[in-house]
Parts: sequence; C-alpha cells; structure tokens
Amino acid sequence: MIKVGLLGAGRIAGVHATAIFSNPGSTLSAVSDYFPENAEKLAAEYGSTARTTDEIIADPSIDAVLIATSTDTHSNLIEAATAAGKAVLCEKPVDLSLDRARACQSNVAQSGQPVMIGFNRRFDPNFSAMRSALDAGEIGKPELLSITSFDPAPPPVAYIKVSGGLFRDMMIHDFDMANFMMGEAPVSISASGSSIVDTEIGAAGDVDTAAVTMTYADGRIAVIKNSRRAVYGYDQRVELLGSDGLLQAQNMLENTVVKSTTAGVSGAKPTYFFLERYMPSYANEWGAFVDAINGGSALPVDLSDGITALAMAEAATQSLKTGAPVSLADV
Amino acid sequence: MIKVGLLGAGRIAGVHATAIFSNPGSTLSAVSDYFPENAEKLAAEYGSTARTTDEIIADPSIDAVLIATSTDTHSNLIEAATAAGKAVLCEKPVDLSLDRARACQSNVAQSGQPVMIGFNRRFDPNFSAMRSALDAGEIGKPELLSITSFDPAPPPVAYIKVSGGLFRDMMIHDFDMANFMMGEAPVSISASGSSIVDTEIGAAGDVDTAAVTMTYADGRIAVIKNSRRAVYGYDQRVELLGSDGLLQAQNMLENTVVKSTTAGVSGAKPTYFFLERYMPSYANEWGAFVDAINGGSALPVDLSDGITALAMAEAATQSLKTGAPVSLADV
Amino acid sequence: MIKVGLLGAGRIAGVHATAIFSNPGSTLSAVSDYFPENAEKLAAEYGSTARTTDEIIADPSIDAVLIATSTDTHSNLIEAATAAGKAVLCEKPVDLSLDRARACQSNVAQSGQPVMIGFNRRFDPNFSAMRSALDAGEIGKPELLSITSFDPAPPPVAYIKVSGGLFRDMMIHDFDMANFMMGEAPVSISASGSSIVDTEIGAAGDVDTAAVTMTYADGRIAVIKNSRRAVYGYDQRVELLGSDGLLQAQNMLENTVVKSTTAGVSGAKPTYFFLERYMPSYANEWGAFVDAINGGSALPVDLSDGITALAMAEAATQSLKTGAPVSLADV
Amino acid sequence: MIKVGLLGAGRIAGVHATAIFSNPGSTLSAVSDYFPENAEKLAAEYGSTARTTDEIIADPSIDAVLIATSTDTHSNLIEAATAAGKAVLCEKPVDLSLDRARACQSNVAQSGQPVMIGFNRRFDPNFSAMRSALDAGEIGKPELLSITSFDPAPPPVAYIKVSGGLFRDMMIHDFDMANFMMGEAPVSISASGSSIVDTEIGAAGDVDTAAVTMTYADGRIAVIKNSRRAVYGYDQRVELLGSDGLLQAQNMLENTVVKSTTAGVSGAKPTYFFLERYMPSYANEWGAFVDAINGGSALPVDLSDGITALAMAEAATQSLKTGAPVSLADV
Repeated sequence: MIKVGLLGAGRIAGVHATAIFSNPGSTLSAVSDYFPENAEKLAAEYGSTARTTDEIIADPSIDAVLIATSTDTHSNLIEAATAAGKAVLCEKPVDLSLDRARACQSNVAQSGQPVMIGFNRRFDPNFSAMRSALDAGEIGKPELLSITSFDPAPPPVAYIKVSGGLFRDMMIHDFDMANFMMGEAPVSISASGSSIVDTEIGAAGDVDTAAVTMTYADGRIAVIKNSRRAVYGYDQRVELLGSDGLLQAQNMLENTVVKSTTAGVSGAKPTYFFLERYMPSYANEWGAFVDAINGGSALPVDLSDGITALAMAEAATQSLKTGAPVSLADV
Repeated sequence: MIKVGLLGAGRIAGVHATAIFSNPGSTLSAVSDYFPENAEKLAAEYGSTARTTDEIIADPSIDAVLIATSTDTHSNLIEAATAAGKAVLCEKPVDLSLDRARACQSNVAQSGQPVMIGFNRRFDPNFSAMRSALDAGEIGKPELLSITSFDPAPPPVAYIKVSGGLFRDMMIHDFDMANFMMGEAPVSISASGSSIVDTEIGAAGDVDTAAVTMTYADGRIAVIKNSRRAVYGYDQRVELLGSDGLLQAQNMLENTVVKSTTAGVSGAKPTYFFLERYMPSYANEWGAFVDAINGGSALPVDLSDGITALAMAEAATQSLKTGAPVSLADV
Repeated sequence: MIKVGLLGAGRIAGVHATAIFSNPGSTLSAVSDYFPENAEKLAAEYGSTARTTDEIIADPSIDAVLIATSTDTHSNLIEAATAAGKAVLCEKPVDLSLDRARACQSNVAQSGQPVMIGFNRRFDPNFSAMRSALDAGEIGKPELLSITSFDPAPPPVAYIKVSGGLFRDMMIHDFDMANFMMGEAPVSISASGSSIVDTEIGAAGDVDTAAVTMTYADGRIAVIKNSRRAVYGYDQRVELLGSDGLLQAQNMLENTVVKSTTAGVSGAKPTYFFLERYMPSYANEWGAFVDAINGGSALPVDLSDGITALAMAEAATQSLKTGAPVSLADV
Repeated sequence: MIKVGLLGAGRIAGVHATAIFSNPGSTLSAVSDYFPENAEKLAAEYGSTARTTDEIIADPSIDAVLIATSTDTHSNLIEAATAAGKAVLCEKPVDLSLDRARACQSNVAQSGQPVMIGFNRRFDPNFSAMRSALDAGEIGKPELLSITSFDPAPPPVAYIKVSGGLFRDMMIHDFDMANFMMGEAPVSISASGSSIVDTEIGAAGDVDTAAVTMTYADGRIAVIKNSRRAVYGYDQRVELLGSDGLLQAQNMLENTVVKSTTAGVSGAKPTYFFLERYMPSYANEWGAFVDAINGGSALPVDLSDGITALAMAEAATQSLKTGAPVSLADV
C-alpha cells in the first residue's frame, strides 16, 4: 500500500484524489494547498488529512507525492520530493522554462527516484487501443499522423497570460501524443497560428488557433491542429496512415441515442471537456504509476518525456515567431 | 439486342424506361399506356414509339415486355405476352387474388416463356452484398431475421382502397426479401396491425402500422415491421443474426456531411423514397433480366417467387383478421 | 446516511456492493450469503461485516436491504424485510410464480415500506436519454417500438432449468423496457420461440430464440427479439418510431478506434456483457433508490412494475405454448 | 442543344463522353485523339464520329470543346478553341508552367469565350452540400480547414515523371477545394513532403506524402494532407471548424452492410478511386457548364480559378525546396 501526499487541491487534484482513493494499492495520506481551506475540504471528502507541503515532503512515512500545483512550482517540488526519497507523479508541463526543466532533470537524476509526468492521454482507452493495434502491426509502418485537439471554449485571458502560451499549455499534450504514436521525437517543427477565436488572446501575445507540421528523420510527417473553441464539445481525435491501412481514434459521445426527424439524423455531442472525456485515463494513469512503483519496473512516461514535449513546444513557439521551421536539436 | 415493349407509362414505367434505354443489350421499341398521351410523352423522351398494348403484344419483332400497368391487369398481360412468345418482366404483385395468380402461373407454364417478377430490392447493392456475405458463410447459419420497412408518408386513401391492403401492396416486398435472405418460405405467419398513422386508412379497412412474425420449419424466426410513415425518409433496413455474427444493411443517406454544433452531431437523412433509394436496383434488375434472356439461363426471380410472396401476404391478411397464426400451407 | 444490508454475495451482489460503497449517501453495513465464506470475502473487500440474513433483517439499525439472492427467496425476503420496517431494493424477477408475487405485493402493502425492483436498464444513460427525448416530444407520439436484446452466449443448461424460462429470466428486462418506453402495459402478447442455438436448452423445455409482439389499447405495437447468442457481444438496442421521427439507442462499444485496411473498415465490438454495459446503470439505480428513500419521494420503479413485467412473461409463456395471442388481463 | 467536340479519348474522356451523352442539353458531335483508333472506339460507343482535333476546332457547327488531352497540350488547345469561338471545359491543370498558363489566360481574355476548368470535386454532392451548409451560416465563420486526400495506390513512376509533381498533379484539386471552401486564396503556403511510399518516386524527384499549411489574410488556417497510398481505397475527406461548429464531408462507402462477429464490427471500404467516387460530380460539372453556356451566366469555376490553384502548387513546390513558407503573391 503506497502512502500518497497530494500537493494541490484544485480541480485536477480532485480528479487525482478520486483515483488515489479508489486504487486498492494506494491510500491518500495527506493533502496540501496554497489555500489551506481548499486542502481541508478535499481531505475531508476522502477521509484524509490536510497538511502543509513542507510537512508532507518531510514525512518519511509518505512514499509518493502527486504534484498538481501551479506550473511555476513543479520543478522545485519535483526536486524537493525526490531529494526526500519520494516517487513523483507530476502534472504537465514540467516547467515553462526548458532550461529550468532540464536542470530539474539533472538534479533528479542524482536522487534515483522515479518521476512520472502526467500525460494522461496515453492511458485513454481509445488511444491506448490504437497504440496496441499499431504495435501489433495492424496498419504496417506508420507514415502520416494527424492529431485534432480542440477545446470547447477558451480559458479566461488571465489564465492565458500565465499559461506559457498555447504550445506549452495545450498542444504539449498533443506533442506527447505524437511521440507516443510515432515512437520517437521529430527532427523539425513548423508552426502556424493566429488569434481568431478571441482577439484578447492575441492581445495577450498568444494564439488560439494553430497548426503544426513535424517531420521525422525517416521522412514521416505529423500534423497537429489546435483550436481553443469547438462549440460542440471537446474534440480529441487521432488518426495515423500506415503502409497497410489507417487507424482512427474518434471522439467519445455523451450517449448512443440517434434521432431521425425531418431535420436530419442527429446524435449526441462529444463528452464536453477533459474531466468527462479523460476520467478513465486518470484512473489508468495512476494505476500504472502504482504498478511501476510496486513492481520496481520502469515508468511508462518519465521526466525525459516531459522534457521532450516541452522542447517541442519551445521549438513551435520559436517557429511561430520566425515563420520558419525549427530543428528540435537547436532548442 | 433485345427489343422491348413497355406496357404502362406511369412513374415506375419511367424508371424502367431509363434502365431499358441505358442497357447496351436492350432497346426500347415501343411504349403503351391506358392514356395514349402518356405513352407518347414517355416514348418521345427516349426516341421510342407509342403504340397500343395489343399492337405491342402482336408484334413478333418485340422480344420482351415489361409490365408496369395497374395490378388488376398483370395476370392477363402476363398470359397474353407469354402466349405471344415474349419474355416478361412484370411489376409486383402478380395479382391481388392468389387464386388468379396461381391460375396465371399454370397458364404461363404451358408457354415455356420466362416470367420475372419485379422484386427489385434483391438487386439493391446493399441487400445483394448482404446476401453475398451470407452465402459466403460470414455469419454462419442464419437464425433470426429482422426487416424494417417504413415509407416516408402514406399514399392517398384512394390508392389504399385499390391496393389490396398493406400486406399485398407494401409488405410483399419484405416477404420476398425474407425469402431472399432465408432461402425458403416460412411455415407459419402471424400478423398484428393497426391504423394509427391515418384514421382514414383504418376507415378504408386497411392498416398503416404492422408487425409480422414468421417461423420456419427448422425453428428460425423472421420479423417484419412496416409503417406507412417515417417522417425522416424511406427507412429500409435488414438485419440477420446468425450463429457466427450479425449482418445489417443500413439506410443509404443523401450525403456524407456531418455537422457538429451546440445542438449535437447531425447528418443527412436517408434517401427520400423508392425512386432515390432503389434507382440502382432497377438498373441492376433489368441487367439481370437481359443477361438471363440472352444467356438462356434461369431468371434470378421468377413467377413462383411472386406467387409465394403473394401467398404470404394472403396469410398475413388472414392472420390479422383472426388474430391467430396462419399456416402458409393453408392459403 | 442509509445503512444497508446486502443479502447475497454473488456476482451481481458484488456490483451492488460497489454502488452502495461509492454512494456518499449510503454505507454497506453488512453482507450475508447462503455460503458464509462468500459473504465474508465480499464484506472484507469493502470494510463491511458478514452476518446472517436473519441478523440483518432483525437489526433495527439497518435501514434498507438489497436482495441479490436466488429468485426463489425473493418474495419471502421482501416480506420479511418490509415487515421489519426496511426499505427494499430487490433484483428481478420478483418471483417465478405470478401468484406468489401478487401475494407478496399484497403483504407488502400492509407494511407501507418502499420496495424497488432492480430494472437497472431504466437507469442506463442511453435508455434514459432516449426516454427524456421521448418525454420532450422529440418524435411526437410513439407508435412502433422495437427492442433487440441478445446475450453473447447462453448460460449453462443447469441455470436454464431453474431460471423460469427465457421470458421470465431474460426477456423480463425487455418487458419492463417496453413499459418504460410506452408508458403503459400492452393488452395482448403473442410469442414465437424455438431452440436453435443450443438443442439442450430445447431439451430442458426452454427456448433460446424468441420474438414477441405486443399490442396496446390504442393500436400501438411493440416487438421484442431475444437470442441467447450473439457472438460479437451483448446486443442491447431499442428503437421507437413516432409520428415525428425515430429514436434509437445503440450499443456501447469497447472503444472508438476504427481501422481501415484492404479488408474493410472495422471498429470495436459492443461491450461484452451486462457487467460492462450496465455498470453505470447499477450506480445510477442505487443513487435513485437512495434519493427516493432520503427524499421521501416515490420510487422510480416499484413492486407493481415487477408484477406487471412478470405477468407479461407469464402471458408470453402461455402464448408460446398455445400459439395464440394472450390477453394480459387473463393472466 | 450544345454540339460538343471531345478532345481526347482516354479514361477521363470516357467519363466526360457519358456525361455529354446523357445530358439532354448537349450532344457528342465528334471525338478526337492522338491515337485515331481510340477516338473511333469511343465515338462508336456513343454513336458519335471520330475526327481530328483540327477539324473539330475548325468546324463552326461545334459550339464547345471538352479538352481531356495530355496536360502539355491544354494551353494551346484552350487558345485555339476560344479563338475559333468555342466555349471550353478543360481538365486540370491548365498547364505545368504557371507562366504559360497566365499567358493563356491573357490570350483567352481577348476572345471573350468562356473557359471552365475541370475541378469536378466542387460538384461532388457531399462537398457541395458542405458548401451549402457553410453558405447558410450553419457553422458561423470558418476558421480552420482540413483536407485529407489520399489515393489508393501510387501511379507508375513513368507517369510521375511527366506529372509536374504531387502539388501540380494531385494536390491541385485540394488547393481548389480550399479556395472553394474558404472563399478566397491564402496569402502564404508552407509545404512538407517526403518519399516514403515508394522510393522510386523520390528518385524521380517527387514526393508521395505531403502536408501543406496555408494561412489567410485574416488569420484563418488550412491544412492539406496528401498520400499516394491508402490501401483501403480513395480517402477524400474535408472538415472545417467554424465559430459555431464543425462540418465534415466523409467518404462514400461501397455499400451500407455492417458485419459484427467475434473479430469486431466491420463495414465496406470507401469507393475505390476517382471514377467510382466522383462519377456523379462529372455529370453535375457538365450540367453546370451546359446551364451556364445556355443561360449566358457566369461559369461556376473559370480559368482564373485554374491559375490560382496552379500558383498555389507552384508556391508549395518552392516551399518544399526551400523549407520556408512562400507568399502566394511572390509566385
């Protein structure tokens, strides 16, 4: 039984609390938050205890921490927790600064502690089934990947301003998905983007609509499309053309009811947002973390995966500014 | 090149005229109709000639007739045309009277001329692909058949009154489809029906909504559902459960466009009615007729198939009246 | 917080234990089973206690019991628990004997205790969304209902022998679904059935493939198809034609991955069986029970619904024997 | 009745011959080909006459020519035919040389004769329904366009060598589709491509897999993906995200049959290649040409559309070489 300290008590922390609580191999030992009352509230829901982050990290009886705090604290907390001998599961991104993230990686290496980055989409039943089909050779050699990833509505501009920008905040999930599906990182990244959904996002220096093309050492190609607004819900699709066929992971729908009237044939919308769509993936992600810690096996996603995705976001950000492709080796 | 006389110049005759005209193995030699001006109009469209029905049947240069006149004339015309040495393709049903149809069959047998009944749905690309999959053993032994067949809107009550009733006029296509899919006729037929779409249909002694259950000698079961009204279009689906799986032939849609909005995900309606849905089947049907006549091979659907379907309609009509199952051997 | 005694510790009891445990408004106080070691094992999983059924019923601190024992004990346990002042949620069917079930209903009435019957499918997200669309008038007046309900594989013949037969054991869910969708019970029921999946089922006096047609006072019609074998998984579909359109609740699939190869375009199978497909419905069902008990409101499904479905099963059983429709008023 | 001369008697000319023949407003007056025996064969099929191209152009009784010869002859024939006072429908592309195509446009302008370029996909029922929905404002303002266009198998390398390359030969259809959907040309084009399907294509200096990103004056973005190989058939999909929703035109399938077995749920493949998929579009295209000529109205696609698409192909070709985006104004 792994004793877990949960750092952060916000919305995503609540999702993780459920996963930790429901997993028979882990127990939610303590919860901390910048606002202690939030920690107390979340702890009470799961019969846990609110403590400070320092107390949790200092407590030798706690085996692992799950870091679900604001991004600017991630690197420091990863370093502190691993130095204290704890295993870590940290929400993405590792850091907004690629340099800082790389320093963190270097510091953590000394501790020998396992650090997993929360790329939960790898654990979505649909994407993992797609990856399994790929591994089984069902479409031969992959050649052309396409990722569609649209949010239902843009976040507040205040959030945009501290987010690190669309590539580090939103598309970073898709960069990792590309790595997951293609089995390696690309060599070159070319980004286009604009602010056409909400001009305030543009005024804040970010884009809300973007397309990124990535090329691989052997000539393979990947395209990622992002939009901050798809009014019909959370659009999360991946498709991959291979030498022997095509694999597509399509959206999950709210229900299977189809209605035919004089107006046409209509069905349910995609599940609305990440909490609905990816709830199973968070439970599966936590289960994989627990299994790896207990089994002494390698983590399915580790800190280096987080660094790679962050470097891709950095390259895309540079490409958007210069208008030219950026080599991943140069960032 | 088969020279064809088309008897009838109504809507369905127009469909057949196109098929005859477009088939490289046949030519539309003449057209007749109860109203000569209709025959003239249709003939002009295809560079053909309007003649009387008697002239067409008497003309030894005409190899085949396609009978698309009103149902009450079918038996007489089949007999006259075969007696004159012509091959015949006749629209369904053979007759409203089962006795008369059987007499017709007996009379025709003497002529030795081929008579095909226009169960065009057997030639629909979807149903024929389903039958091919069935023949290839893709779902093992068929066990439970389900046919959904809804018209978009009821016909005028004046038509209902001379139609012979829903079972002889509308479900007869589905009876033949059941025979096509199950490979034999059922032993027992049980019908339920009511007039809930249009009370005038009930007042005219007919039903507009019906379900028929049929059982086969070896215990297999088939269910047919009919409605005179499906406001979303022509609903024509067949599904068959077998020992190794399920086959479903679904509706054809007007186009493949899908729209996702806050209201849901919607697509096109089924093609509206039989002319749109079954246009390819009429061309395929005529092609099969021409091939059989030219090749001296057996017709894919013959007069006995028409008699069997008519007997099933008769049994269903009796079952509806008595409320009890009727043995097909008893009609 | 409702204190719950769970009677039975088999497979379906395990599903209910999860629902009781996870619901914030209920606690799993005790578990009993005919085999005490089963009760102990299940109780241990949820930090509960194994006791005897008599102890549970006698314990005034227990507010409600969930009856998940063998069918032959249902009526007695419902009577004992309600006499002891407990609310009851009992698995279907109420009893194999319609007379005994009616006596149970009469006895329970004196206690005034609420008794809910476990027609969990009413709480399936798809069927409940369909019902909501229906209530919202989205397809106008319902006219023709069709229920497809196939199990993936037949149960052991030993189970068949004590099951009460397909209509009481399997189709009873579909009878209740018809009542749920049509808003009333039918007036007449006509059944066809045979044993073509497994001849041993026939030898045991039961059928494994069946079609039932039901007619309603106002002429509406419903058709239910059952098979004990659909090798591709659990096939659970409902469709309803109305004056303004069609509603269809389709199968849930294991995932959304679609593969296109030279062999065709293929996707995942339906979720395999009732545990997978209906897991959410069991949680929703228990939530509705807890809400009704806590809120003092009427149960969404009560004992009379269980009696009605049982009477429909009885009518279908009689119809299968006689070959003629049976009036529901006569059973 | 428009009298038409068909220049060319190859495969695509055969498709056009059918359209010309079947349209009640046009007649196939003559057919020419580089190989006279091909012209004779095609003419015989439709009761037409084989003549030389010069004869056809010189014949004042011929109102229009359809140019379906090899690309290198297009500009000359457009000029000759318009100078002779004929209306022209010419297959894409106008020319492999953008300069030559622009000179052709200038020369034709003097004649005042209408010249339509064969971007038949605009007349595909699915894409035209999508455009209609767009025009009706059903998804608000278009923001992000995605075109997937995969051929089933690469053409012979001999064809590749004279094709002008993937952008001028294959993606030119998608460039025009983007113009059709977005209502204007982009300002900047960025191309990635490689030869991973067939190394001989790479050896011939061309690519077989490509992704192109285009940006518009107001910040909108379009992505086009091409592959010369999709083993499951001809993959032709367009999707467009707008401020109020998403429109998708999906593939047409060979039939609607769905099979469910232990292996999964499978359906038919997309129609195999352009002849199958786009047959209706060729008939509609010709109908639109005839209507415009007869009605004296503007052509729905004209020579300038052909020039624009060719310029986009030129920009993409340059971008592929330099690795940087190319401004459309610079080509």
